[in-house]
Amino acid sequence: MPRSLWGWGLTERRPALDTVAARALPLFGALTPEEPVPDEVALAALQAPRVPVPADLAGFASAAAHERASHARGKAYPDRVRGFQGDHGSAPDLVARPRDEAELLRVLAACEAHKLAAIPFGGGSSVVGGVEPRLGPGHNGAVSIDLAALDRVLEIDDVSRSARIQGGVFGPALEQQLGAQGYSLRHFPQSFEFSTLGGWIATRAGGHYATLHTHIDDLVQSVRMLTPRGLWQSARLPASGAGPDPNRLVCGSEGVLGVITEAWMRIVPRPVYRASASVHFADFDAAVAATREVAQSGLHPANCRLLDAREAMITGVAADNVLLLGFESADHPLGPWLERALAIAIGHGGSCPRGPRLRDDRDKARAPGDDAAESWRKTFLDGPYLQDGLLCLGIIADTFETACTWTAFPELFRAVTAAMNDTLQRVCGGGVVSCRFTHVYPDGPAPYFTFLGRARRGAELEQWAELKQAAGDALSAAGGTITHHHAVGRTHRPWYDRERPEPFAQALRAAKRTLDPAAILNPGVLID
Amino acid sequence: MPRSLWGWGLTERRPALDTVAARALPLFGALTPEEPVPDEVALAALQAPRVPVPADLAGFASAAAHERASHARGKAYPDRVRGFQGDHGSAPDLVARPRDEAELLRVLAACEAHKLAAIPFGGGSSVVGGVEPRLGPGHNGAVSIDLAALDRVLEIDDVSRSARIQGGVFGPALEQQLGAQGYSLRHFPQSFEFSTLGGWIATRAGGHYATLHTHIDDLVQSVRMLTPRGLWQSARLPASGAGPDPNRLVCGSEGVLGVITEAWMRIVPRPVYRASASVHFADFDAAVAATREVAQSGLHPANCRLLDAREAMITGVAADNVLLLGFESADHPLGPWLERALAIAIGHGGSCPRGPRLRDDRDKARAPGDDAAESWRKTFLDGPYLQDGLLCLGIIADTFETACTWTAFPELFRAVTAAMNDTLQRVCGGGVVSCRFTHVYPDGPAPYFTFLGRARRGAELEQWAELKQAAGDALSAAGGTITHHHAVGRTHRPWYDRERPEPFAQALRAAKRTLDPAAILNPGVLID
Repeated sequence: MPRSLWGWGLTERRPALDTVAARALPLFGALTPEEPVPDEVALAALQAPRVPVPADLAGFASAAAHERASHARGKAYPDRVRGFQGDHGSAPDLVARPRDEAELLRVLAACEAHKLAAIPFGGGSSVVGGVEPRLGPGHNGAVSIDLAALDRVLEIDDVSRSARIQGGVFGPALEQQLGAQGYSLRHFPQSFEFSTLGGWIATRAGGHYATLHTHIDDLVQSVRMLTPRGLWQSARLPASGAGPDPNRLVCGSEGVLGVITEAWMRIVPRPVYRASASVHFADFDAAVAATREVAQSGLHPANCRLLDAREAMITGVAADNVLLLGFESADHPLGPWLERALAIAIGHGGSCPRGPRLRDDRDKARAPGDDAAESWRKTFLDGPYLQDGLLCLGIIADTFETACTWTAFPELFRAVTAAMNDTLQRVCGGGVVSCRFTHVYPDGPAPYFTFLGRARRGAELEQWAELKQAAGDALSAAGGTITHHHAVGRTHRPWYDRERPEPFAQALRAAKRTLDPAAILNPGVLID
Repeated sequence: MPRSLWGWGLTERRPALDTVAARALPLFGALTPEEPVPDEVALAALQAPRVPVPADLAGFASAAAHERASHARGKAYPDRVRGFQGDHGSAPDLVARPRDEAELLRVLAACEAHKLAAIPFGGGSSVVGGVEPRLGPGHNGAVSIDLAALDRVLEIDDVSRSARIQGGVFGPALEQQLGAQGYSLRHFPQSFEFSTLGGWIATRAGGHYATLHTHIDDLVQSVRMLTPRGLWQSARLPASGAGPDPNRLVCGSEGVLGVITEAWMRIVPRPVYRASASVHFADFDAAVAATREVAQSGLHPANCRLLDAREAMITGVAADNVLLLGFESADHPLGPWLERALAIAIGHGGSCPRGPRLRDDRDKARAPGDDAAESWRKTFLDGPYLQDGLLCLGIIADTFETACTWTAFPELFRAVTAAMNDTLQRVCGGGVVSCRFTHVYPDGPAPYFTFLGRARRGAELEQWAELKQAAGDALSAAGGTITHHHAVGRTHRPWYDRERPEPFAQALRAAKRTLDPAAILNPGVLID
């Protein structure tokens, strides 16, 4: 099935625009849809490659227009606007699809030899400019290195609950291969269908678990990364105290130190016991206090998602603030866990009209997709398609997320909401900002903001840039990180460069110069 | 109270040698005690400093013999033997005791100016040569930087459960200051009484929790480290996805990149609910299988310590293999947690003759030290004193630890035990090797080995070197890390240098050259 050249995922899954328009009606009134520039028009306008395909890569590289255009950038709102307008000007000069490490090494060697920027490309779902080819000083062209051929689970270790997995495998194929043996990685970012294991590791993706193992980092047992100066292979260890953890320098390296080809990942049996409840709060501060106490309780819920009243309303979940609690286990029923979490929430004034829900799937041969969690997951995974529909209707819809201490949260929430409302008023004539917690920690939440505003056709990029600037500045001023799980790329650089310790930036630059002396890898991302 | 110049901790707490001899009698027969060379004799033999105290440091630095000798090395077995023999030849030329960051900066500047090696020193409990001054190329002398003046909890954030703490504070003073407000860091390494927060972070110490947050790394919210090229200060964040985690490059840096002066640490209220049980197994393999299932259950016990029959016997706990299970919480009673863990263990053939023990301390004003856990902790903390007693009696007593996958464990256990037994036979005429798991993970255990053998007076260092070589080689060959929580220092370099990915070594060296261009910091430790 063909993937959209400008928007999210599969072309055929974009929702019908009249349905989207009906949903947006209460907020924005009647909207007039527009259609994107047809692919054939956009492709005909693509500039010619600056360099030929190196002979050494001919067997697995292409300079075909569609291939190049589909690797031109990620899926941030401005990326989609440009694609919608038929602009694929950031396309690489060629796309290489190595089928093994030997071919990948040939790509890196060719990039060094011909002075080409080398851009690792997984599912292309970056929302921070992380896969958009840009030339650094002295580069003659750019190669997008598409790793989709490295798509297999190579080995499963039942005893140590781990699996050796190739970096280019997409979420569904990964889960299908693990699921055939009863296992799961249980990492479900919103990009799940169109992102890869290697991409998750390179960007420190945030996944399924709301507490404890929130980032992919915690699931990495060992990793294999090809650098221009040799193979980075860490040992298979459950833990070690031998020097700084080498895996933690790979996690978040965003393709500037090497290309991740494989990892041993910690896997789990599919859960069979589930316990969940939705707790409603009239007061947001009380809901936050309840969420904090659950996060600090040591109960470790798999789900602990707080939606503010606006977010609950927009997503159709509820009319007030709602805390979604969930526990999952392959080992034991979770009644006492949920009972205690519910008692905490109710102690802060929450109510649970539907009561707790306990499930035991030991004896059921369940087809995937037959329960409420699967339904929620589908809605969650369809979010980016909805964003495309809104774009066609002239609505800027985007999100940003952070993490901060519980102490800093109230003022951060106030300041960010005020800044976004002010900026939406100024650049869009009004709009909506909502918030949820996607992950929570004993020392703070990860607030995730959604904003919607009316676009002025042709001025969307300027409008978006002002909104993004306001969001980043407000987060940064209030003590939040510029990203909890969307990486830095190029978009977040201004704030990241201030957030990270300066000696760490020096150390990272030194590491980069040593491992990538020709400076071919992902120029402009993360560090200069 | 005076600290021992050669042995562990306080001189007065060394156990009576006749008591130790009585305990050792069944294993080694009658033993003849010897006493260490008296301090005054050893200090009189100390060589003169190679360099004068720099004028700029005069207010807080000393070249007094006792001060220098007490910073000559750590507390590994060979360190103690040298000290016992009156050899403090590795003493620094001066000891600086900065009282704030300004004075610390003056120390680093003086070291650069006068070409002196700068050795960060916390409690001096390193067992891997991590605080022993050695001169690198071009050094004129060495300064030990004792951080004990930085001994305060500066700030507590109740809402975000975190505390800003100075790097030089020792364990008991840290817990006393947090405890005054009802909190604890709950990090209790065996060195607890004579090690510091900064030392724990620099060496990735292993602490109280047997599962989940096993290393200090997980408790670090942000860290402040002075490097020769500027201040490394990370932001206070519960989590972030912005680039590789800068804190993770500080954890395990062992003083080669900078000196840790402060950290915001995640703290917890003191637990009031406890649930524990001891499960006995006739068969070691069954005990391992039970421990693995508990580690993979998602129950997250605070204690999950498996002692093999020999270890249980030596420590007087039991005559068979025993699994110590414990849960602790400040939030909720733990009956269901322990019940499930016990069911797992009994399902593998374990028996629990004393039954589960549940405690609720909500209403008790307990004095510290009044229960079994405190009693065990005291025995645990007294372990290094016992080692001193055995040394006086002519017994080599030492430990080493690792971590490996569950899959690798059976062969690792067999090979390590065989190698140690063979080597003990060869160099000591026999001896004992025992094993326990100090920490466990879903993908593998952290086995901790103890060995005992008879020393030949005067040849202890050669005997120990052969035993250490055998241990390291066996661990390395069987796929274990060279250290789970005792750091690399200099002693573990041969195996660490093979264990770490070569490109990571290059990156680390590049970072070191950038942040410490004069190469003053802890030469020879971790990297060259």
